[in-house]
Amino acid sequence: MSTGKNKNLLLTIEYDGTGFSGWQRQPGQRTVQGELERVLSVLCAPSITIDGASRTDAGVHAHGQTATLRGDFSIPTERIPIAANNLLAGAGRFGVPDVRIRDIAEMPEDFHARFSCTGKRYIYLIRNLPTPDIMRRNQCYQVPMPLDLSAMQEAAALLPGERDYRAFMAAGGNGSGEGQSTVRNIYSASIRQAEEEGCGMLRFEISGSGFLYNMVRIIVGTLVDIGQGKKSPKDIPAIIASLDRTKAGHTAPPQGLYLDEVFYGPE
Amino acid sequence: MSTGKNKNLLLTIEYDGTGFSGWQRQPGQRTVQGELERVLSVLCAPSITIDGASRTDAGVHAHGQTATLRGDFSIPTERIPIAANNLLAGAGRFGVPDVRIRDIAEMPEDFHARFSCTGKRYIYLIRNLPTPDIMRRNQCYQVPMPLDLSAMQEAAALLPGERDYRAFMAAGGNGSGEGQSTVRNIYSASIRQAEEEGCGMLRFEISGSGFLYNMVRIIVGTLVDIGQGKKSPKDIPAIIASLDRTKAGHTAPPQGLYLDEVFYGPE
Repeated sequence: MSTGKNKNLLLTIEYDGTGFSGWQRQPGQRTVQGELERVLSVLCAPSITIDGASRTDAGVHAHGQTATLRGDFSIPTERIPIAANNLLAGAGRFGVPDVRIRDIAEMPEDFHARFSCTGKRYIYLIRNLPTPDIMRRNQCYQVPMPLDLSAMQEAAALLPGERDYRAFMAAGGNGSGEGQSTVRNIYSASIRQAEEEGCGMLRFEISGSGFLYNMVRIIVGTLVDIGQGKKSPKDIPAIIASLDRTKAGHTAPPQGLYLDEVFYGPE
Repeated sequence: MSTGKNKNLLLTIEYDGTGFSGWQRQPGQRTVQGELERVLSVLCAPSITIDGASRTDAGVHAHGQTATLRGDFSIPTERIPIAANNLLAGAGRFGVPDVRIRDIAEMPEDFHARFSCTGKRYIYLIRNLPTPDIMRRNQCYQVPMPLDLSAMQEAAALLPGERDYRAFMAAGGNGSGEGQSTVRNIYSASIRQAEEEGCGMLRFEISGSGFLYNMVRIIVGTLVDIGQGKKSPKDIPAIIASLDRTKAGHTAPPQGLYLDEVFYGPE
């Protein structure tokens, strides 16, 4: 790896969002960006900042968040994750950190974690059993009432396309850095039983060019409403066409949501 | 159910130990007993206390901890779990509590959660994959080095019996309320792959009349040492016979341990 000046590094980051007030740095709050910048400032350069691909909310998790880190560092690139993870582990109970750098790569000068991103995949876990599992309470949405999975699958299949998805956007802006457009391209959406994720677990997976503020959580809440018979799969096209948030379902809670992967380059 | 005076109630309790400084009430600390007594004092009678079957350590979980609650309460017995769980949920992030009363039963006057107990079953989860899963970091012991499961199974099979298990006892007393005896009857001990608990998970299960302080965690640490080839399954009888803590393995961390069930009556 090069040791030249002005490196542009792409970090791939995993975190359990439970103990964080979201991704974005905020004074007096423990955030993922804040924790990473704290340790990277020790290792790389004082007061260093990173740019994340997605500003995940409090309680939301990530397997594959990304961020860019720019600067002229004497520490060899490949040492950064090991050293940072050791510092992060020291802050965790029993020495196990709730955020970890999984990977690092040197990128061209014009690469940017957010602006170069061509898409993202999110996972949402719903546990559908009558009694709660408190061990997983921060890692999935627990729905005790029986859900009609085939109705939810039918609804999910109607989601992809390039459309204005404003009906699935929470008040608070599009949060995408793309100005005011609420058009997004959803590549795929599906839901299936996933016992490998835990007993009674349903796994929803959605990929797209980008997502509006709370879009995945509102889509999941709408699917849960459909699974409970409060809405029909056939309502999906009319909900999208309405451009009206009040026509969609409830907002599913943050703890079931995982930013799984950020895509770069052609899909 | 009776509404007479001086009820003696057996609570069955589930908790995620991550956010607690253990079971036992301690001033200025958030403990499971303290949380339960706080809400039960609102519902049943001021300054009520409960007696737990086991004083689990910080970070240790329970599916089936038990405790007795005595007194003359106007609230109907069957309402107590519902009302208590609602109060407990209010304290949890997203309204999902980390402790919950699973069941309640009226017991004879001479019944006591600890003294009437005839045995306990503990579960210990070990995740054996090269990369950590930070989402499960508070719920299992993550061992990245490959473990020889058949050696661990051979060792586990040598554990049961009625013996002096002092070699597996941490300094700090026997913690069993049985005076100074360190003899216990271990009914069964086994370890197996348990993918249903999560990818790469090993599940150790042990039942016995009672357990010495940190006994299950020291046994698990010894099995992990055996799985890594640092000790042999054939060492188990000599470790037990030595009555010497330094002959056993390391103490496995608390977050993999679950108090699964407390037994009453003949096994």
